Amino acid sequence: MRIDKRQNDELRPITIKRNVMKYAEGSAFIECGETKVLCTASVSFESPPFREGKGWVTAEYNMLPRATQQRNKRDISSLKKNSRASEIERLIGRSLRACCDLDAFNDVTIIIDCDVIQADGGTRTASITAGYVALYDAFEWMKEKGYVEKNPVICQIAAISAGIVHNEVMVDLCYAEDSNAQVDVNVVTDSFGNIAEIQATGEKSTFDKEQLDEIIALSQKCIERIMEIQRKCLAE
Amino acid sequence: MRIDKRQNDELRPITIKRNVMKYAEGSAFIECGETKVLCTASVSFESPPFREGKGWVTAEYNMLPRATQQRNKRDISSLKKNSRASEIERLIGRSLRACCDLDAFNDVTIIIDCDVIQADGGTRTASITAGYVALYDAFEWMKEKGYVEKNPVICQIAAISAGIVHNEVMVDLCYAEDSNAQVDVNVVTDSFGNIAEIQATGEKSTFDKEQLDEIIALSQKCIERIMEIQRKCLAE
Amino acid sequence: MRIDKRQNDELRPITIKRNVMKYAEGSAFIECGETKVLCTASVSFESPPFREGKGWVTAEYNMLPRATQQRNKRDISSLKKNSRASEIERLIGRSLRACCDLDAFNDVTIIIDCDVIQADGGTRTASITAGYVALYDAFEWMKEKGYVEKNPVICQIAAISAGIVHNEVMVDLCYAEDSNAQVDVNVVTDSFGNIAEIQATGEKSTFDKEQLDEIIALSQKCIERIMEIQRKCLAE
Amino acid sequence: MRIDKRQNDELRPITIKRNVMKYAEGSAFIECGETKVLCTASVSFESPPFREGKGWVTAEYNMLPRATQQRNKRDISSLKKNSRASEIERLIGRSLRACCDLDAFNDVTIIIDCDVIQADGGTRTASITAGYVALYDAFEWMKEKGYVEKNPVICQIAAISAGIVHNEVMVDLCYAEDSNAQVDVNVVTDSFGNIAEIQATGEKSTFDKEQLDEIIALSQKCIERIMEIQRKCLAE
Amino acid sequence: MRIDKRQNDELRPITIKRNVMKYAEGSAFIECGETKVLCTASVSFESPPFREGKGWVTAEYNMLPRATQQRNKRDISSLKKNSRASEIERLIGRSLRACCDLDAFNDVTIIIDCDVIQADGGTRTASITAGYVALYDAFEWMKEKGYVEKNPVICQIAAISAGIVHNEVMVDLCYAEDSNAQVDVNVVTDSFGNIAEIQATGEKSTFDKEQLDEIIALSQKCIERIMEIQRKCLAE
Amino acid sequence: MRIDKRQNDELRPITIKRNVMKYAEGSAFIECGETKVLCTASVSFESPPFREGKGWVTAEYNMLPRATQQRNKRDISSLKKNSRASEIERLIGRSLRACCDLDAFNDVTIIIDCDVIQADGGTRTASITAGYVALYDAFEWMKEKGYVEKNPVICQIAAISAGIVHNEVMVDLCYAEDSNAQVDVNVVTDSFGNIAEIQATGEKSTFDKEQLDEIIALSQKCIERIMEIQRKCLAE
Repeated sequence: MRIDKRQNDELRPITIKRNVMKYAEGSAFIECGETKVLCTASVSFESPPFREGKGWVTAEYNMLPRATQQRNKRDISSLKKNSRASEIERLIGRSLRACCDLDAFNDVTIIIDCDVIQADGGTRTASITAGYVALYDAFEWMKEKGYVEKNPVICQIAAISAGIVHNEVMVDLCYAEDSNAQVDVNVVTDSFGNIAEIQATGEKSTFDKEQLDEIIALSQKCIERIMEIQRKCLAE
Repeated sequence: MRIDKRQNDELRPITIKRNVMKYAEGSAFIECGETKVLCTASVSFESPPFREGKGWVTAEYNMLPRATQQRNKRDISSLKKNSRASEIERLIGRSLRACCDLDAFNDVTIIIDCDVIQADGGTRTASITAGYVALYDAFEWMKEKGYVEKNPVICQIAAISAGIVHNEVMVDLCYAEDSNAQVDVNVVTDSFGNIAEIQATGEKSTFDKEQLDEIIALSQKCIERIMEIQRKCLAE
Repeated sequence: MRIDKRQNDELRPITIKRNVMKYAEGSAFIECGETKVLCTASVSFESPPFREGKGWVTAEYNMLPRATQQRNKRDISSLKKNSRASEIERLIGRSLRACCDLDAFNDVTIIIDCDVIQADGGTRTASITAGYVALYDAFEWMKEKGYVEKNPVICQIAAISAGIVHNEVMVDLCYAEDSNAQVDVNVVTDSFGNIAEIQATGEKSTFDKEQLDEIIALSQKCIERIMEIQRKCLAE
Repeated sequence: MRIDKRQNDELRPITIKRNVMKYAEGSAFIECGETKVLCTASVSFESPPFREGKGWVTAEYNMLPRATQQRNKRDISSLKKNSRASEIERLIGRSLRACCDLDAFNDVTIIIDCDVIQADGGTRTASITAGYVALYDAFEWMKEKGYVEKNPVICQIAAISAGIVHNEVMVDLCYAEDSNAQVDVNVVTDSFGNIAEIQATGEKSTFDKEQLDEIIALSQKCIERIMEIQRKCLAE
Repeated sequence: MRIDKRQNDELRPITIKRNVMKYAEGSAFIECGETKVLCTASVSFESPPFREGKGWVTAEYNMLPRATQQRNKRDISSLKKNSRASEIERLIGRSLRACCDLDAFNDVTIIIDCDVIQADGGTRTASITAGYVALYDAFEWMKEKGYVEKNPVICQIAAISAGIVHNEVMVDLCYAEDSNAQVDVNVVTDSFGNIAEIQATGEKSTFDKEQLDEIIALSQKCIERIMEIQRKCLAE
Repeated sequence: MRIDKRQNDELRPITIKRNVMKYAEGSAFIECGETKVLCTASVSFESPPFREGKGWVTAEYNMLPRATQQRNKRDISSLKKNSRASEIERLIGRSLRACCDLDAFNDVTIIIDCDVIQADGGTRTASITAGYVALYDAFEWMKEKGYVEKNPVICQIAAISAGIVHNEVMVDLCYAEDSNAQVDVNVVTDSFGNIAEIQATGEKSTFDKEQLDEIIALSQKCIERIMEIQRKCLAE
């Protein structure tokens, strides 16, 4: 039995609210159990040097100081970007670039800001899931304004965490589970059922291929349900 | 007639929600019109060198990147603390220290984190008003845990912005008004009607003593209404 | 009786020396009792993005390491701009922008560097008072060089600190008084008797409107005397 | 046919030289084709706060400025830790912690410095493979000095990169292949055949489970050969 | 003929004022022509790790923004210690450590702050010359307070710049000469006529041993005169 | 007798390998006893502001963390450029600028990166000696590519350390000697026998002119041998 009485393949309650910010071109607020992340998509009319004249999508990830049990200091107080955040925001950026045609919009960078209001496990996958909604809406804004003819999104992207806890494969780990996980996996897939990224880490022990297969299969099943939530949100 | 059809002495709708965060010892979420600030109070069992063995209250103020019309870069990206934020968090800290007996709790620093989710004028005064609620609750937490016998709060503290726009004295300026203000004033008072801090700045012109008197009188009247909202919130 | 036997409304001896630096376009050295500040005005032929094509005045404030009783480390050693200095230099900048027509000179930023050689209270108000002289002379330099037809200064600006110490309202607090002040006020006015900025802080207690009125009245009277010193200095 | 005429399952020539540094407790220099990484293991007699009284292994990864085609600036010139390096050094640290019993040595942190002398693809996996040798030798040094009774290494750890290039699954991508890869995978396994970490990224497209299976199977086969090279190196 | 009509072996007018700062344990203000440096000596009751339990003397060197023709930005604005200043303060520190017995005072670091108020060539040598006076007085302060029995100074230290300009060997170069110097030399000697440090740099051309000999001989003669000024200053 | 049984005027074995890096325009790897430095020369098609339209040569110097007995932290971990490295890289830059005609190539900066792989004394002089070879080859690359008609090198530059240890003048100090040296000297000369730079420091005592003369004479003799090694290397 899991800490919060869920089945191993059971997601926590997930809600995504769209268009929650007054100024951002796209925005979404996601709650997965006690995990709460605010994602905004900002359209900036310049592209990075290595994509000159083309489009780009990038992400920033940050936790509010009191998103966690212990207050964590702001990056600026130590003048150092948190290295865990660097790792996570690179994952989010790669994942969201996988859902759109980067050549379909020019000299534009869309910045997805993922600010974790409260953290209870799965903040990076929640950021990807809600980041997709914010990104979609930023492209809609561009379409309305005439910057693109059609929305450059080519498929849905969503993500879920999974892992092995007390030798059981389970999905959507809360913090208490995550900190005891033997294996910690983040799966990002698109709406064709293909994989955009998998990161599987043996935190307390290594794992075999069969366990990995089981985790991936379970994760893919769950992501389908999450994509339905995304679709409902965007249909509203 | 003001932009949003308010009277010159009319506040925007203000709501304060208490205890909104899972982990923080105290927390409050304030909305003043479109301005939204999340305040958390974190109890840290150490005091700064200059208050060795005694208590201290300090504040940090930060805007989310997309709190504003234009996305503002995170401090860490330039490695520099925003100087406006430095100025503001010093004001918040001084104001909140005015409402409690700093000698009534030992070797404890309470950090008030004010994170602006959305900015539409008056974020610093909203931070003080909601910071008071978060601070009060952190002290309640300390009382429950036995760190203090009674809550060290000695009076209420609340704040309001005011100013002169198109030669009219008005309170609670929204961003559009604030950016056209000739004079910009922030008033912080306690529940005895005394002043904790006043900052009056001639942004586009200087001003005379009569104008200052009028602004202060109007602000004091409005703060009384805000204090009632604080009391209702804390009574729930 | 005050520490140095002054009356409550008595200023310390103030001297301002003009044109003290070989290279700066304007400069002034002010001594107020033991407080000593060197102000230089540097003309830079560019304006900040938000004032494109127009003029700007800004300030930097810094203390030498041994301006104070205890040696204070240089900002660079901690890689952090001192937040008190940030607050102060914003005040100086706003105050000096109030004395000139910023639209009367184009694509020029004048930087007022205020370096505190020795600190004994009132360094920020001394910086404003001497900064005015340095700024005036930098504009004179611009006039001589043909960058402006007439000096863009439209009024004098000067400042004084005041406060309540041992329940007495007094002006021009030295460090020993300042560190015991219940209320600490900085008043900046122009030569029309109007107020450019007031910052009134209850450091150890709050204060009422009558006390504020008394402080402001006393400060205004003193600033008149300081403006006379400025005028004499500029007449030499 | 691959750029350098290798078969898809063919590794580049790999050599590992052990004990190449005069001062380090352990060291190894690895060459995989034109990729060259120097790994040193430094024994530091302190553990991080979250492992108080116990052991820890951590890694730092850095490229020399001219390891690459274009000179890359040193981190210190921008005051920012390269975020790609942050991501990589976290992977190296996790991977190397998987090969030893962290509770078998106390109050010791072993720092694995991975300095890339020349980069031609696969620098992170080469760092793990050589880092294992350096770590092993640092533990041997500890054994000789009497800090541990037996070497805390419990299994071998090695890594390889793999991917899909022009729709072909291949291992050990050189830079030219890597920059054209559709899918980029890093596989880290132990000598029991178990997986320590897998990171699979769809750089230019997503991928399906069958492709992932094929990549993993091929990688595992190759890592066996790499582990033999490690064993030979450590047997010398 | 030199720019300011001096002979090649002629110093600019040098004045050193002692005890110019209210709070510092030692201080000196030196003027060499238009070069003006304020040196303070601060006694700090701790020693650096590599001198545990013993004494140390170190220096910091900094220019005010408008010490120079062009305003130079403060280090903190770029978050980088100026590398020329790093080089200079290391020279000053080494030079001043040469004049005292560092084992004669315990757990004390004396920090010599050299703040260049105005720069017209020779600021580093002026810093050494005045730094000696400030250091001497800080030791006197320690003697008065009973921290040492006798002043740990064992000899005088002073310095002068010299060089080759238009093929002429000359001393005490002003900025205009220095920026045209073919060879730039800084000589630091003690009062026994021995050399503490020589740095000779061919800025625009290399130089031969005979030229070096001539420069050193001339410099040594000039430093004798400077030491007399130091002695007079300390005798007052 | 010296630690490693050398004569006082005896160099350690020196080898310089040229063209050791795949991507750099010039490179050299020098070993002087146990001291090992990798120098690369990178051609960058831009010049610094103060050399607009002309050529420049600059250097960066850095130690790998485990170049030394004790691991030294990377600059980025403290966000501060090591001040010893700042001093050294300024010396290297000045020295290498002395060997070429900076007006003979336009809008090009050549950056000499000196990365100390292992340090056993004399790293800065080894950097200059090998930096010359890397710089020469970078100019050859420019000649081949048609950026210059002839190689802008006008003479050879090489350097050696020397000093006084236990009252004996000796050259090419290893670390153990260097850390006990009374006097520490670095001599840089060109192939005409002229001096480019001399830095002579009394580390533990001052020294007289005769000692300096002896050190310089001995150093010049040794540098002739080093230049022969440079020439052989470049002839291969």
